[in-house]
Amino acid sequence: MPVIHRLARSVRLPAVVALCLFLSGSLSVAPVLEDPLPSWHEGTTKHSITAFVDRVTDPQDPAFVPEDGRIATFDNDGTLWVSHPIYTQFQFAFDRVKALAARHPEWKNEQPYKAILEGDREFLAQLTPHDVVDLVMKTHAGTTPQEFERIVRQWLKTARHPRYKVPYTELAYQPMKELLVWLRAKGFKTFIVTGGGIEFVRAFATETYGIPPWQVVGSSVKSKFELDNGKGRILRLPEVDFNDDGAGKPVGISSHIGVRPIAAFGNSDGDIEMLQFTDSGPGVPLSMLVHHDDPEREYGYTCNTKVGALCKGLELAKQRGWVLISMKNDWRRVFSFKQEPTQQADSR
Amino acid sequence: MPVIHRLARSVRLPAVVALCLFLSGSLSVAPVLEDPLPSWHEGTTKHSITAFVDRVTDPQDPAFVPEDGRIATFDNDGTLWVSHPIYTQFQFAFDRVKALAARHPEWKNEQPYKAILEGDREFLAQLTPHDVVDLVMKTHAGTTPQEFERIVRQWLKTARHPRYKVPYTELAYQPMKELLVWLRAKGFKTFIVTGGGIEFVRAFATETYGIPPWQVVGSSVKSKFELDNGKGRILRLPEVDFNDDGAGKPVGISSHIGVRPIAAFGNSDGDIEMLQFTDSGPGVPLSMLVHHDDPEREYGYTCNTKVGALCKGLELAKQRGWVLISMKNDWRRVFSFKQEPTQQADSR
Repeated sequence: MPVIHRLARSVRLPAVVALCLFLSGSLSVAPVLEDPLPSWHEGTTKHSITAFVDRVTDPQDPAFVPEDGRIATFDNDGTLWVSHPIYTQFQFAFDRVKALAARHPEWKNEQPYKAILEGDREFLAQLTPHDVVDLVMKTHAGTTPQEFERIVRQWLKTARHPRYKVPYTELAYQPMKELLVWLRAKGFKTFIVTGGGIEFVRAFATETYGIPPWQVVGSSVKSKFELDNGKGRILRLPEVDFNDDGAGKPVGISSHIGVRPIAAFGNSDGDIEMLQFTDSGPGVPLSMLVHHDDPEREYGYTCNTKVGALCKGLELAKQRGWVLISMKNDWRRVFSFKQEPTQQADSR
Repeated sequence: MPVIHRLARSVRLPAVVALCLFLSGSLSVAPVLEDPLPSWHEGTTKHSITAFVDRVTDPQDPAFVPEDGRIATFDNDGTLWVSHPIYTQFQFAFDRVKALAARHPEWKNEQPYKAILEGDREFLAQLTPHDVVDLVMKTHAGTTPQEFERIVRQWLKTARHPRYKVPYTELAYQPMKELLVWLRAKGFKTFIVTGGGIEFVRAFATETYGIPPWQVVGSSVKSKFELDNGKGRILRLPEVDFNDDGAGKPVGISSHIGVRPIAAFGNSDGDIEMLQFTDSGPGVPLSMLVHHDDPEREYGYTCNTKVGALCKGLELAKQRGWVLISMKNDWRRVFSFKQEPTQQADSR
């Protein structure tokens, strides 16, 4: 065991103690060479992340941030998982209307139910996120959050994405999942800050992203407490409580988290205020936008879409120095499932 | 080293490896005898806590709960710290009115400012918690949450409790602080669920209780995001957003935490719904009420008070089997500071 003996001599420990420490992992003889972000190509984008993490976790660095302040927030749709051709929660809402239609004969003549039941794509294409939130709210008022989450989980088990033919949760971006894991290993708390429904996202956030329900901030409906035969429960009400999008995101962060993030990740104009709030903090905050420029492996859109458009945000990114994550050039791999087209070689 | 050899034989390991494991703490040869709750007298109350924790953390027990579900919620005023003779946030509000009075000459003739400035105890005694929330809100609208928290922290440094003459944060109950630490060591997440202002409590929760800002649920004012010379910030608005008291507590829990607690601790009728929500869950949930029956070391009140009355809750405790924590009989020690009168012997 020459290594152990060398180690023992270098730190002046008896060889048997050094062996113990070595075996127990308290001393390591080689630097950790494993890349925590293997799905990211080497390059300036990846470097801007690793340099940021190195600085805020180095107690000798002026930009050091104690663990309590290492807050990283992530938008969900288009940032952590695919949001095209339509938001996943839209598809959920449409499928739920179909599932519940037998109990609501009046829906045959009432919009937007009629369009959903008839598959009227032209009509459906005009629906705004607000319309769909309204739809989910009305069709699921009177359920408890637990019942609602069970319905979502059940749907996620069977629903398949029209292009990839896999469950939607398989469409979480592998590079972002690696980033979440790595940040947590470096003492960060990771939060989702989504324009989507808070209970919709909580239904899969733990399993898919390792993020517990209390670290999900999202849009919500009002709810009330009631006793049902002595059993206390919460019921969802058909009234919007909070819209966690745009300027609502920093408000939701302030209310739920109570600490300004030092890193924020988004992909669309709905994330602008979250990134502005983050980049206005002290130190060396990191604000990033996922750019959907990879129609081959995922989708190609910037301002030219109704689903997660990045228009004003692209301009602001230049002005404020937000780093764009090019899906095409920065990600070696987009998804973890096998059918994914992969880039042949690491050319960057 | 006969212990090591016995250990090695019993698990069929070479002695040197057993020694390593022993030294590295991977194997222990003696049960841990240290009491994690030394400020609690032995007895049925302490046993109801330890038996609960033993069961939900034992994978062999039918009542086992995985770590993600080990949520414990704590009221603050009267449960984690002293709330008499008046709520600490009331005293803060009164002191702030005095501090800001020079900028508001009109307050001399306007209630409740006039009564505060003149020390009109009769008038002040009639103020409800809602009046005081309103007061704090109006006097601190237009500040950012960070500025407001700095003001609270500064006040806590200098303000002294009228009876104990120590900072209010010294009046956190030592037995409850031990309970918080122990629950976290057993894989629980501990949350404060307070009728008080969320930002008021966040200002000291980390230092006093080891609870980070995002694990504080409380009453809140509305706020908005704005850009000030390109810098993004949140401003507090003079409008109540959420009243986290009574039936608001389970609603706040559902919204912030998203998981039903398996243990809840309160002390007054404002905690009833939180305890009902908790005790309606599956398994062996624990609902407890701190009973202020110790006028010598703290205060003596049940239903006969305007500050944290326990009336309906006492009746419900009998019906639903909630355990009352007797401050007098169950706590060996109330506070950690030296001046505290201590009980001489452990008589139970």
